[in-house]
Amino acid sequence: MGEYDAEVINIGNELLIGRTVNTNATWICKKLTLLGFNVKRVTVVGDVLEDIVNVVREALSRRPKVIIMSGGLGPTFDDMTSEALAKALNRRWIVNEEALKMIGEKYRKMGLQLTEHRIKMAKMPEGATPLPNPVGTAPGIMVKYEDTLIFALPGVPAEMRGIFEEHVENIIKEVAPTLARAEGYLYVEGIPESSAAPLIERVMKSNPKVYIKSHPRGREEVSKIIYHIISYDEDEVKAKDNVEKALRELEELLKREGVQHIRRISGDEYYDLK
Amino acid sequence: MGEYDAEVINIGNELLIGRTVNTNATWICKKLTLLGFNVKRVTVVGDVLEDIVNVVREALSRRPKVIIMSGGLGPTFDDMTSEALAKALNRRWIVNEEALKMIGEKYRKMGLQLTEHRIKMAKMPEGATPLPNPVGTAPGIMVKYEDTLIFALPGVPAEMRGIFEEHVENIIKEVAPTLARAEGYLYVEGIPESSAAPLIERVMKSNPKVYIKSHPRGREEVSKIIYHIISYDEDEVKAKDNVEKALRELEELLKREGVQHIRRISGDEYYDLK
Repeated sequence: MGEYDAEVINIGNELLIGRTVNTNATWICKKLTLLGFNVKRVTVVGDVLEDIVNVVREALSRRPKVIIMSGGLGPTFDDMTSEALAKALNRRWIVNEEALKMIGEKYRKMGLQLTEHRIKMAKMPEGATPLPNPVGTAPGIMVKYEDTLIFALPGVPAEMRGIFEEHVENIIKEVAPTLARAEGYLYVEGIPESSAAPLIERVMKSNPKVYIKSHPRGREEVSKIIYHIISYDEDEVKAKDNVEKALRELEELLKREGVQHIRRISGDEYYDLK
Repeated sequence: MGEYDAEVINIGNELLIGRTVNTNATWICKKLTLLGFNVKRVTVVGDVLEDIVNVVREALSRRPKVIIMSGGLGPTFDDMTSEALAKALNRRWIVNEEALKMIGEKYRKMGLQLTEHRIKMAKMPEGATPLPNPVGTAPGIMVKYEDTLIFALPGVPAEMRGIFEEHVENIIKEVAPTLARAEGYLYVEGIPESSAAPLIERVMKSNPKVYIKSHPRGREEVSKIIYHIISYDEDEVKAKDNVEKALRELEELLKREGVQHIRRISGDEYYDLK
């Protein structure tokens, strides 16, 4: 699956001082996963040019198919993602004429002139493509480096999501895997996670195309566990069959251990359960 | 401030597939920041031994004072933080007798035997110190490597927080900076962030010990901005004076631009405002 690896980079001191919960990472990770990418790493750095440059270069060295960055595209002195990206790629950081047009139009509608700080939002690595921002001012940035597609999006969640859904999603669908994915979810009460652990291993051994993740909800004494069963295969029928077979084996093994409360749950319930 | 750098590493596929919001990172970052540490990076990786080893080695190469890890300490096959930590440090991964006692006692109370999967939670890098878990079963791990103190904590938030507050906090206080920190917060309505940007730069230039972070809440057209002013100095009085001076200058400059809605807010309000 290395061919479909993805990485996420979030930029902003507010994340590192614990002021802001990084919901951008969660949202982007879920999107990438549903598109079939294998998110290998999320990295958060502050508004420090050198740190951003290093993180981008390190990510590129692992050769993911896609890198999604968020944060640091605004007009203030500490918005430096675009400049850092140019530096990481050893490209010039220049005014992108298309981006300048987008920004100029937004401010014209607001009756405002293009100042130095506003023009800054149109500066991009040479060869980059600006992505229109349906919500705010700063355009997103798309740039390719070797086999990696890099996207830099604003940190404001509504702007990040807007650009992702209107532009990024369609572009990266083209390079997403064609493998089908199926999932299943089992809610289990009354067996400590440590007792169920060997059962999970047995099921995974006899179902090599299946991955089972255990999410303990309660404690060892009053145990509640949710199992998330995932399989990738050539087509949806095969992937679903893999999941069904693993689910049945796991249910059977748990019953043999005397577990009473076993219940299949839906994907929605799985993502909603706190 | 390099001397007081800290890093956070969160482990778990549930974070990378976008199932779980990484509130552990936020909580740990806030704690470290309030203790005076400068969190430089947060890295999230999945339940893959090699990936965890790489991330730990990379973090160590940047020589932070403290590394806090969370996740991957449980009994299942994909809990591999402790083993990865041993590998990253080139140490043996062995049963820690003190940890085994802690775990043995927990299961004895539950009327359960020590199985292979339970004993696994007592395995730690050679030379590590187990930290009692006041909430769950798996003890935390403390281990020193050169000048870096590394802590590995469970991923279940209540367990992570319990071990942090009962043990980690007291230990790292000893190596935290003695500089005093002061903060101030300004809520501003009616000036686009891009218009305020040059004012912020002026205030920071005339107040070199002050850092101002701008948090846009609305849009450029209907702008709401919160400014977070931070200063470190030898003592609390000096740090507070720095913040007060910067706040006054900023208020003055904003008023001169015709901004009407300027309001100081408290730290609590700042952290609560969505």
